[in-house]
Amino acid sequence: MPSPGLLTTWQYAVEVLATAAFALSGILEGARKRLDVVGVGVVASLAAFGGGTLRDLLLDRRPLFWVEHVEFLWIVLALAVLSVLFLRGRHFGLTERAMLWPDAVGLGLFCAAGTQVSLDMEMPLLVAAVLGVITAVFGGILRDMVCNEIPRVLRDHRPYAICAFLGAWVLIGLQVGLGMDERSSLLIAAGFASATRLLAVRFDWALPAWRL
Amino acid sequence: MPSPGLLTTWQYAVEVLATAAFALSGILEGARKRLDVVGVGVVASLAAFGGGTLRDLLLDRRPLFWVEHVEFLWIVLALAVLSVLFLRGRHFGLTERAMLWPDAVGLGLFCAAGTQVSLDMEMPLLVAAVLGVITAVFGGILRDMVCNEIPRVLRDHRPYAICAFLGAWVLIGLQVGLGMDERSSLLIAAGFASATRLLAVRFDWALPAWRL
Amino acid sequence: MPSPGLLTTWQYAVEVLATAAFALSGILEGARKRLDVVGVGVVASLAAFGGGTLRDLLLDRRPLFWVEHVEFLWIVLALAVLSVLFLRGRHFGLTERAMLWPDAVGLGLFCAAGTQVSLDMEMPLLVAAVLGVITAVFGGILRDMVCNEIPRVLRDHRPYAICAFLGAWVLIGLQVGLGMDERSSLLIAAGFASATRLLAVRFDWALPAWRL
Repeated sequence: MPSPGLLTTWQYAVEVLATAAFALSGILEGARKRLDVVGVGVVASLAAFGGGTLRDLLLDRRPLFWVEHVEFLWIVLALAVLSVLFLRGRHFGLTERAMLWPDAVGLGLFCAAGTQVSLDMEMPLLVAAVLGVITAVFGGILRDMVCNEIPRVLRDHRPYAICAFLGAWVLIGLQVGLGMDERSSLLIAAGFASATRLLAVRFDWALPAWRL
Repeated sequence: MPSPGLLTTWQYAVEVLATAAFALSGILEGARKRLDVVGVGVVASLAAFGGGTLRDLLLDRRPLFWVEHVEFLWIVLALAVLSVLFLRGRHFGLTERAMLWPDAVGLGLFCAAGTQVSLDMEMPLLVAAVLGVITAVFGGILRDMVCNEIPRVLRDHRPYAICAFLGAWVLIGLQVGLGMDERSSLLIAAGFASATRLLAVRFDWALPAWRL
Repeated sequence: MPSPGLLTTWQYAVEVLATAAFALSGILEGARKRLDVVGVGVVASLAAFGGGTLRDLLLDRRPLFWVEHVEFLWIVLALAVLSVLFLRGRHFGLTERAMLWPDAVGLGLFCAAGTQVSLDMEMPLLVAAVLGVITAVFGGILRDMVCNEIPRVLRDHRPYAICAFLGAWVLIGLQVGLGMDERSSLLIAAGFASATRLLAVRFDWALPAWRL
């Protein structure tokens, strides 16, 4: 494993898992749109790298995480190529429903990673929470926008971005408020955000919307 | 009021007003698309912060204006939540028509603010004018794109971006050409751009288009 | 001709040609969507500057190429205005088919320029190739997205981004592997990518896609 550089080992592990989870969600979206192998690679890359790249741009943080860790690029490209070559329609009854899982897991992990990086750079707390949400949702926004759909974060009336927002405040509360160590607070915050999202889908929670 | 930092007090006032105006336009757009409270918050934030953030990224200017002034974030999020909770359909006969106003006012103010910041960083004049236009229109482009519409700046055959472009040159002419002070030139340029836009809508001016 | 600054004269020539080619593709796309003169200017600018700007942002390279070379802005804006004023429908039998050419030529040139800039900044080789592809395709993605279409790079089942990817590796192989000089390797790599794209369209090559 390469040296984590700016990232601690725990942050690194969290980013790898989140990247793989969102790459998978992009591959599934590309499959539904019947894209070719390059299109699937592009959508998977946007989903996997979009959020973290925007976070790094906004924070003026260089090298970007996928420049520092080139293996992320290799993994996502390999996943996309292998999926197109080996996945078939009969897998889809399964994966269509299972798409909720990578998306929710990626949401929690990226939200924790993005908030942590912002705290490390001494951002104000609300900014850290917002950057956690941006890291978590922007990849999915790009994925849906290039496929010409209204992003899920906007049209799904079940809680999505707000799970990331709450997860970010859990991390801030545990780490800044209670002084918990990084490893535990990252895992708890990521788990909280992912679990909230999965529960919201399972029990079909609805957010308040316009009553017109 | 917090210390304006990189911004002078006048630039600060202009950015606050422009941000609120565009947040309002995003809230109205979100309402029309029947988004939930989080979706409205996201669209309002994109509209309010998109243009200024892209300007700051392109100019490599840190901290970003909403990192330096976290109160902007609180204001936009609060506006979005309160609107969803308290606005009702019966308000819409009013607000539907009134959307032209926040959009035109935000256009003028952001154009003046963006051009001023670029002049302060000693950009070439055309670049300053282009960055003024980007600051003014990019928030609206993002707002329309995530809602899966062709951005207003492209499909409205009445002058829009060009009002910002002319306003930017008014600011440059007054300040660089005639040596007018910052306060007066900001207000005149912003007023010129907003008024041109409102007149264009009122009298249905049309830009030359393809005759095919 | 202005001093090329960060760019060598050859890179400069390549960027000018690529910018003009993509501006033309944006103008044609805007014409098809019946946009007005400002809309055509915006789409042409996004197509011409989008890829190079994102590359410069990701590499944290300032001044941006269109800030350093303001003449690029003047050229693209003038092209857009002149096209709207003077092009007519009867030109379109010609230009509709000819759009493949500026798009393919711009693809090859921007891919070579983007990879070269990244190599000059000592990026890892895969990152240089990816940034070459981003420079080559992102302008077209923006052009198609603001016009509310699924980007060509995703829906065209003939090779597109992969031509840029291969061209980037040709440049890397010639220059890093074989030690060829910059001028020859830039031209060969750009020619290779453009020719592959044109051949792919001519002979209707298909990429492997999902078989469902």
